[in-house]
Amino acid sequence: MTIVPNFQTAIDLEKLEKLGEVAVRVGLGLEKGQDLVITAPLAAVPLVRFITKHAYMAGAGIVSAFYADEETTLARYQHAPDASFDKASDWLYEGMAKAYANGAARLAVSGDNPMMLAEQDPAKVARANKANSMAYKPALEKIANFDINWNIVSYPNPAWARQVFPDVPEEVAVRKLADAIFAASRVDVADPVAAWAEHNGNLKKRSSWLNGERFSALHFTGPGTDLTVGLADGHEWHGGASTAKNGITCNPNIPTEEVFTTPHALKVEGYVSSTKPLSHQGTLIDNIQVRFEGGRIVEAKASRGEEVLNKVLDTDKGARRLGEVALVPHSSPISASGILFYNTLFDENASCHIALGQCYSKCFLGGASLSQEQIKAQGGNSSLIHIDWMIGSDQVDIDGIGADGTKVPVMRKGEWA
Amino acid sequence: MTIVPNFQTAIDLEKLEKLGEVAVRVGLGLEKGQDLVITAPLAAVPLVRFITKHAYMAGAGIVSAFYADEETTLARYQHAPDASFDKASDWLYEGMAKAYANGAARLAVSGDNPMMLAEQDPAKVARANKANSMAYKPALEKIANFDINWNIVSYPNPAWARQVFPDVPEEVAVRKLADAIFAASRVDVADPVAAWAEHNGNLKKRSSWLNGERFSALHFTGPGTDLTVGLADGHEWHGGASTAKNGITCNPNIPTEEVFTTPHALKVEGYVSSTKPLSHQGTLIDNIQVRFEGGRIVEAKASRGEEVLNKVLDTDKGARRLGEVALVPHSSPISASGILFYNTLFDENASCHIALGQCYSKCFLGGASLSQEQIKAQGGNSSLIHIDWMIGSDQVDIDGIGADGTKVPVMRKGEWA
Ligand SMILES: [Zn+2]
Ligand SMILES: [Zn+2]
Ligand SMILES: [Zn+2]
Ligand SMILES: [Zn+2]
Repeated sequence: MTIVPNFQTAIDLEKLEKLGEVAVRVGLGLEKGQDLVITAPLAAVPLVRFITKHAYMAGAGIVSAFYADEETTLARYQHAPDASFDKASDWLYEGMAKAYANGAARLAVSGDNPMMLAEQDPAKVARANKANSMAYKPALEKIANFDINWNIVSYPNPAWARQVFPDVPEEVAVRKLADAIFAASRVDVADPVAAWAEHNGNLKKRSSWLNGERFSALHFTGPGTDLTVGLADGHEWHGGASTAKNGITCNPNIPTEEVFTTPHALKVEGYVSSTKPLSHQGTLIDNIQVRFEGGRIVEAKASRGEEVLNKVLDTDKGARRLGEVALVPHSSPISASGILFYNTLFDENASCHIALGQCYSKCFLGGASLSQEQIKAQGGNSSLIHIDWMIGSDQVDIDGIGADGTKVPVMRKGEWA
Repeated sequence: MTIVPNFQTAIDLEKLEKLGEVAVRVGLGLEKGQDLVITAPLAAVPLVRFITKHAYMAGAGIVSAFYADEETTLARYQHAPDASFDKASDWLYEGMAKAYANGAARLAVSGDNPMMLAEQDPAKVARANKANSMAYKPALEKIANFDINWNIVSYPNPAWARQVFPDVPEEVAVRKLADAIFAASRVDVADPVAAWAEHNGNLKKRSSWLNGERFSALHFTGPGTDLTVGLADGHEWHGGASTAKNGITCNPNIPTEEVFTTPHALKVEGYVSSTKPLSHQGTLIDNIQVRFEGGRIVEAKASRGEEVLNKVLDTDKGARRLGEVALVPHSSPISASGILFYNTLFDENASCHIALGQCYSKCFLGGASLSQEQIKAQGGNSSLIHIDWMIGSDQVDIDGIGADGTKVPVMRKGEWA
């Protein structure tokens, strides 16, 4: 029997420290004197310690970490009065928004138990999420508007590992998930920072080609899918490293394999089927099928989690429209691993995807200086949510449609054409 | 080998849950719908989980916990640039102050490693503490002014247990410290809530007698001590349960054995010696000897930690004057345990003590409606700090001095006279 708390781990600590170093140096590009706000599941303490160490080595001012504990979240669902589910920690999120306004960088460690809330009342889950989203909005806007450098990186939480590898003992599952994270995050090579420089160069080539083509729409065809996604006026493709409004170049997602831009909120037509399950705040939503008219989802089904899906779509007016479209080849390393991660950060990078909700203002030419009204006028969507889900596979073809109606092959059977 | 994180514990979990319940029901008197902000060392996760559970059972709105991690604190001292030590997490403390202003209760779990910063540069420790105190001031004022119900409770952190019981294996030390905490916190009885009601009644009797006497000063005599502590004009004695300005009755300290009031900041004369070591934010300060003139410490020595003591006294103008005087019989259960806890919450309750710095406005008659200026005019001290240190023992006598100079025995050889 051990004495609390025990943060010994079956995970390779050398690679875990490299992941922490890459998160700080590549993910954030943290600047000397910059403060850092970290959020993480409680299980991720060992990674947060390495991140904090490397942040201070990079010259950080003050590093603050806020932990989410699955046990206390569940205690709330078990014991809290009904009124609790319309509340959120406003003071905390307001404080974070203030920290970002004052120049702090933001690092989120992902790796929560994807099934954490699966047994809870979907109505309460939806109310709690909505209250949280509203409280978090001022902070999220600073991130979505790319005012500051930010990064998401993952930790192999045991509860997540058990979900991904249900047939092996927990310790083996954690080690397998850790190795998959290290490979996808490019920290299992001799020089991770150099590997990221090369990878960022490749993503830049793809987004430059797409920006040169200036398609007015993308047309997706495949099993259960015939979807035309109009692109926003003055849209801009991005991928890999990119420069925040504070002038700092960072890699917001680790891993990342996508090039992405802003669809036109009013110009999406047709139907589309998800190709991988979506893990949304503790619930799994599978086999999504939706139909768009004039950019708006007018019909939505799912073989599992349909109730949660419909609650998500009812969050606000923008929740039924798209805020992102992203291209990822089926041969990407994450897809090639064959692992279903039940985690958007990984699964979206195994597949072409679209996102419900808020768009990224940086995905417009000159986006940094556009007002909310201008972004809306050019077709940018706004919402409390931003939820990516996967629509690509080795059976999906994509054409780019020019302003004059010409068609250019973009992907064939899930690979760049 | 275990998989992270492991919060199994050698501690009696039934009593730990009772401690969590007492903290919520007796310590906070948490009201239905009230939010709760918890701060705790990372080791205290098991207690925070019980507190959260009982807070929601009591009808809490939203419970937020912020953890301090000794490892990342030390990483800062090892790796951060010099400029870091003048910084603090302002956004977090401002947010907490806002939460209290909006009606949240506050629970602090104590139990940090008392020697955590012993090896670090005292100048950096002092700068970091000062930056923290300044950032925390708006939140601390709401606590010191008793605007809200609040409570401090302790967790037997292994690093603390090793300090208290250095000669036994860690697991044994944790269990011994846990048992001492449970006994002092009155949760090792059949009905802890009833035991607290009786104890609060006894403390009330003592403070009522002192309030009836209306002494203008207390005179302490003992080895190395001949100290006259003038009491503030319109001072009021308190002890045990007490009612915050939000109308909620709570027990701010668990354990508590003291009755206490506000000294007159300008009317303390003579010299006094500490009778137990003071553990101050990671450093031990031992055998303190100070001399007062006109309420101000004009000479200060210590056999250990003298440099830190002098930095503390230089924090601001109020740091050299008293904000509290408290009476505890030598036979109190904590003193009788014979354990030196290296933790003010326990050691102050084993002994009469005085505090440098900020006074409590509630220790004035009608204190709730007094302005800062009125409190100052009546002799109340103000400072960024409030640091209790122990001056009582079985060799110390105390007389109460009336306005007319008459002397009334208050304590003889450390016991109520
Ligand atoms: Zn994406
Ligand atoms: Zn996205
Ligand atoms: Zn006291
Ligand atoms: Zn005190």
